Amino acid sequence: MTSYWNDFSGIPEALEEVSGIIRSSSASKNPIISNGLTALFDGKGKLLRPGLFLIAAQFGKIRAKHYKLAAALEMLHMATLIHDDVIDDSPLRRGFPAVHTRFGKRDAVLIGDYLLSRCFRITAEYTSPRNALNLARLISIICTMEIEQNNDRFRNNISLRSYLRKIMGKSALLFSLACYAGAHEAKAPREVCERLRRIGYNIGIAFQIIDDILDYTGNQDTVRKSLGNDITAGLVTLPVLCALPLDNTGTLRDIFSRTVFTAEEGALIFDLVLRSGGAEAAGKYAESYTNRALREIGVLPPGKNRDMLETLTLRLLVRER
Amino acid sequence: MTSYWNDFSGIPEALEEVSGIIRSSSASKNPIISNGLTALFDGKGKLLRPGLFLIAAQFGKIRAKHYKLAAALEMLHMATLIHDDVIDDSPLRRGFPAVHTRFGKRDAVLIGDYLLSRCFRITAEYTSPRNALNLARLISIICTMEIEQNNDRFRNNISLRSYLRKIMGKSALLFSLACYAGAHEAKAPREVCERLRRIGYNIGIAFQIIDDILDYTGNQDTVRKSLGNDITAGLVTLPVLCALPLDNTGTLRDIFSRTVFTAEEGALIFDLVLRSGGAEAAGKYAESYTNRALREIGVLPPGKNRDMLETLTLRLLVRER
Repeated sequence: MTSYWNDFSGIPEALEEVSGIIRSSSASKNPIISNGLTALFDGKGKLLRPGLFLIAAQFGKIRAKHYKLAAALEMLHMATLIHDDVIDDSPLRRGFPAVHTRFGKRDAVLIGDYLLSRCFRITAEYTSPRNALNLARLISIICTMEIEQNNDRFRNNISLRSYLRKIMGKSALLFSLACYAGAHEAKAPREVCERLRRIGYNIGIAFQIIDDILDYTGNQDTVRKSLGNDITAGLVTLPVLCALPLDNTGTLRDIFSRTVFTAEEGALIFDLVLRSGGAEAAGKYAESYTNRALREIGVLPPGKNRDMLETLTLRLLVRER
Repeated sequence: MTSYWNDFSGIPEALEEVSGIIRSSSASKNPIISNGLTALFDGKGKLLRPGLFLIAAQFGKIRAKHYKLAAALEMLHMATLIHDDVIDDSPLRRGFPAVHTRFGKRDAVLIGDYLLSRCFRITAEYTSPRNALNLARLISIICTMEIEQNNDRFRNNISLRSYLRKIMGKSALLFSLACYAGAHEAKAPREVCERLRRIGYNIGIAFQIIDDILDYTGNQDTVRKSLGNDITAGLVTLPVLCALPLDNTGTLRDIFSRTVFTAEEGALIFDLVLRSGGAEAAGKYAESYTNRALREIGVLPPGKNRDMLETLTLRLLVRER
């Protein structure tokens, strides 16, 4: 799970501790809960959000309780993954059967709720009321954006702005909170906290754009889920928006001149996005947000943490695409 | 909504304020969220949990923030109702189409998550960390018990103990928290807080037993949902457990001698429970928990609050059955 971080001094050990906390915090005598969660932990997630939290915390004075809060962030992330997979009917997650594939949608909804409550339990115990509030507010926004995304399925009138708003809610806010709350809980100087908030935000937006691109161009083994899921589910993401002006056949524009599109047209859109270069054009946006993050990282106090944050950003958003 | 409380001095006004807080706390620019929640609010819930919280708080010194916490309890309850209806596929709730009937299961899961996060937001802002922790812990238990209940569908090996454990998680803990946290937040004496915790617990168990009985014997107009839902969904509740030794035909015992029962046998069980008097026998259990609550209420400090609690208990658990 932590091999992604092997060359980050101290982080693999810290994330091992975080993993232990996740395991013990979500341990339950109920075999469905513990089996469901174990399957998800063994899915070799990168623990990106706890990793970012801990790097950010090292800009201040890191303490034992910060490992608990890092674990809570991952648990929140996992809860949203479980509910997302129920909502999207995705059979796989991290290369393994999704929780609802194994235990049914009923239990998957409840296991997600369970994780959410465990996450709140940790924040109620170890965080400042302000950061607990931030976390709760964040979840409200995540839900609202997901509902908006559902509501826009198979609709064409998606603007770039509305797309960005949705991925902000989906990914960027949690990355942003991870960076900000890490620094804030560790009492880093205020301007460092605020800069880290922006860095997390830009990393998060770029990360989600790349995720949306990989649904078109990914290597199925690396991505560990099937391709074309988004458009099959009626989700118009950045590669589609970028393909619209690039498609010479006019077919895409034709489909999009109507209010809604059908599932069959979805398959056609997938091909047209690839042929017209929509994925590459979307890549430019990811690059731009990555560069914003890198510029802000460059003005952080120099040292080991800044270097780690830069390495992570390059690894996550540039090298491994 | 508050007509249930008309003869409780001061409570209807207080609950109007609570309703206002629920409305504004769950207000969203997203039309699906606000329509979904408005439909649920207009479903004329009795606001039992906030009512209990406020009566309990009057054993101490009630303050403005207590109305917010009372609202948070109802929001938590609503979130579990929304997820429950998704899980149980129940088309109606409070006599109106359930949230998932109107907006689909996807949005219903998310609207439930949204309400849950709003509830945590209020507790993070207004409660003691200890009560926030209690709330989070409670939700973990609610989820675990629901999963256990799911897992036991169409199974016969349900003991009375396992049934009571599940309804504790389903209802009694939230009633118990409402009574305890109300008194505790309002700084009532410790022994009053503890007594109120037990009162809430006993009221909650009796309340859930009666709810389970009404699924067999209820007047469909009063109950505002269709009868026989539980056994159709494979849930073995107290009326079934009580009917087992009472059924002279031996059919029930015969069905239960195998490990699982079928949906068709479920319909047969429904009839056998009614004919053998299983519902009446279950009523004796409800009576016993009601009496425990009434005995504890009798030892509370005398006055208006004690009288209200007694009136409520009798109304809820005795008169209106």
